[in-house]
Amino acid sequence: MLIVQKYGGTSVGDLERIENVAKRVARTKDAGNDVIVVVSAMSGETNKLIEYAHHFSKNPSPREMDLLLSAGERVTSALLAIALKEMGYDAIALTGRQAGIYTDDVHTKARIDEIDTTTMQNHLKEGKIVVVAGFQGITREGEVSTLGRGGSDLSAVAIAGAMGADLCEIYTDVDGVYTTDPRIERRAQKIDKISYDEMLEFASMGAKVLQNRSVELAKKLNVNLVTRSSFNDNEGTLITKEENIMEQPIVSGVALDKNQARITLRNIKDEPGIAAKIFSTLADENINVDMIIQNVGQDGTANIGFTVPENELEHAKNVMEKLEASENIEFDSNIAKVSIVGVGMKSHSGVAGIAFSALAKENINIEMISTSEIKISMIVAEKYGELAVRILHEAYGLDNRS
Amino acid sequence: MLIVQKYGGTSVGDLERIENVAKRVARTKDAGNDVIVVVSAMSGETNKLIEYAHHFSKNPSPREMDLLLSAGERVTSALLAIALKEMGYDAIALTGRQAGIYTDDVHTKARIDEIDTTTMQNHLKEGKIVVVAGFQGITREGEVSTLGRGGSDLSAVAIAGAMGADLCEIYTDVDGVYTTDPRIERRAQKIDKISYDEMLEFASMGAKVLQNRSVELAKKLNVNLVTRSSFNDNEGTLITKEENIMEQPIVSGVALDKNQARITLRNIKDEPGIAAKIFSTLADENINVDMIIQNVGQDGTANIGFTVPENELEHAKNVMEKLEASENIEFDSNIAKVSIVGVGMKSHSGVAGIAFSALAKENINIEMISTSEIKISMIVAEKYGELAVRILHEAYGLDNRS
Repeated sequence: MLIVQKYGGTSVGDLERIENVAKRVARTKDAGNDVIVVVSAMSGETNKLIEYAHHFSKNPSPREMDLLLSAGERVTSALLAIALKEMGYDAIALTGRQAGIYTDDVHTKARIDEIDTTTMQNHLKEGKIVVVAGFQGITREGEVSTLGRGGSDLSAVAIAGAMGADLCEIYTDVDGVYTTDPRIERRAQKIDKISYDEMLEFASMGAKVLQNRSVELAKKLNVNLVTRSSFNDNEGTLITKEENIMEQPIVSGVALDKNQARITLRNIKDEPGIAAKIFSTLADENINVDMIIQNVGQDGTANIGFTVPENELEHAKNVMEKLEASENIEFDSNIAKVSIVGVGMKSHSGVAGIAFSALAKENINIEMISTSEIKISMIVAEKYGELAVRILHEAYGLDNRS
Repeated sequence: MLIVQKYGGTSVGDLERIENVAKRVARTKDAGNDVIVVVSAMSGETNKLIEYAHHFSKNPSPREMDLLLSAGERVTSALLAIALKEMGYDAIALTGRQAGIYTDDVHTKARIDEIDTTTMQNHLKEGKIVVVAGFQGITREGEVSTLGRGGSDLSAVAIAGAMGADLCEIYTDVDGVYTTDPRIERRAQKIDKISYDEMLEFASMGAKVLQNRSVELAKKLNVNLVTRSSFNDNEGTLITKEENIMEQPIVSGVALDKNQARITLRNIKDEPGIAAKIFSTLADENINVDMIIQNVGQDGTANIGFTVPENELEHAKNVMEKLEASENIEFDSNIAKVSIVGVGMKSHSGVAGIAFSALAKENINIEMISTSEIKISMIVAEKYGELAVRILHEAYGLDNRS
């Protein structure tokens, strides 16, 4: 097997941890696999460099930022290769450039255009463990670029895709993806397998294991992604094609997002296209609107309710007041979004009913509802957020029976 | 004028110092010059990275060490460019690769083969301040290389040579080259101008301002080198061609080297070529022999005395005992080498006599003497080292009269 392993900042946070990573890589190699390792900067390093830059400028040049920030991953890759060689393994550290990772020229958030795998292929053929500095690439003009937040995950997934790797393991400090946040419901279970689409819904709901960009890329490149912990030997969660998952539960998990706020506009002016105007203005201002509900109010005027991230509420308020679409605007940040996710919903009816009646039984009022093919999201009062998660987790049979 | 400025680790030791460097660079630019700045890693950074590597391996792979160590200079160059841009100057940071610095493939102590100045030329033409990460280059195979100790100085001198710069300023934490160590003789004066050859003699005697490799390269490339402090505005010392120095003093300075040890072999076997055998063996063992004195002893046998660096004495002892060239070997590390240097000696006779009589007057016995065209070195008992320096400094009229 060809396995790409990616180790994040906490996994390589100090020299002892880098040594542990080296041992894990060595075990993977010893098991007969070819291994490409992608590493992040040691935790804290990137933030330190950002602070340094901000000492000089609030708005440092993106090109120079990339040159600056790419240093951290280079250090880790060199150290890991040195550690592996000391253990008797043939290893080679490659920068983004040396690994053939070509990006566009949007500094600090570049996108990978193409990976020239020649060098990596050659080193693997010679039996070497290839250690790649994550997060970075090179533009066609030879400038150093970085991929933005979660960049090392992207490096790993893109390399796994380009190399046709059998597995891309993303090591972090958590064991994988859970049916819900174990801090809310201690009976939460680790999920063994989950589809890309489910994972995307989870990630967008604040499950911080993987960023959407990486999961989307894995889906596009058909990369089998595993998220697991570098601090123990527990199996992680495999994120893969829906077809690869034999026993599909109807609901895979329950997520809670308390960082939402709701804006309600009542008795909106009866103008054609007023709703379009509201949401295109919000889009122009880069405000992320999530759930939208529109219904007819008194006198034939409409009510529109929608949610935005809590930290964008102030901005949204200003935009709405300027727009003068309604004289009656309410803002509420004391809400929570509870979502259930599962590809099984596609083929099962009555899934939503279970949630509605379970919450009703506990007298939790559902204030807004939105559904997609594989997700049902409900807005409840913020104080009921955790309770709603526990009720739903049990209602869909997700509780760990062990 | 095109000026290359190089700032060492202490000059860019923290963010405030980098800001000061930015101001100095800006002043140079404002004065109407084109400026290329070469920077070292922030002081302590390189040592930290070396320590990291040694945590994993006593003998880390040179290729990976270069990848590791080159990170520090990249950070400084990016930060300095960011600082300059914030001040309103157009600046660009370049890695060794981007600056076109090609080296051989001897990792951790590469030699610069060639500099492709195209990129630097283009940026200068556009009015930019070019900031180059020192100490590093790239091999023809695209591997990152570093130049070893004093590498950033070499980068600066090589760039100045390749670009035909008018001046190459090396900024450190000392004001320049002094007629002798001011800690020994407080009347020591800073030298305004000194020839390459004199500087080479000073450097090899332990004046730590510049390494010989840099001075040799400056001489070869005919680069006007200035060494000065980044912590004040004092003029430094210009190191240049002998012809460029109008008023040549007979003696430029006095140096003291207490890290020498003497080995004396008495009654050496009367074999042809025995001296050659001794010194070729020492050379094979990489022991640096400095002064050598041979004279005829009793019975037609020879006595040979020579000096080696104190920290190589043990090694030299073993080599000598194995060689069995003499049954009578003495070792003495309580010696000091006092040297006077000056190109004026070439055209003046009687220079040595001044030294001999000045030391004799104070009853300091000269145990060994060696002379070159521009240097006279004398071995005295270690305890007389500083006194001898002061006597000679005065005898040759070097004392600061101000």
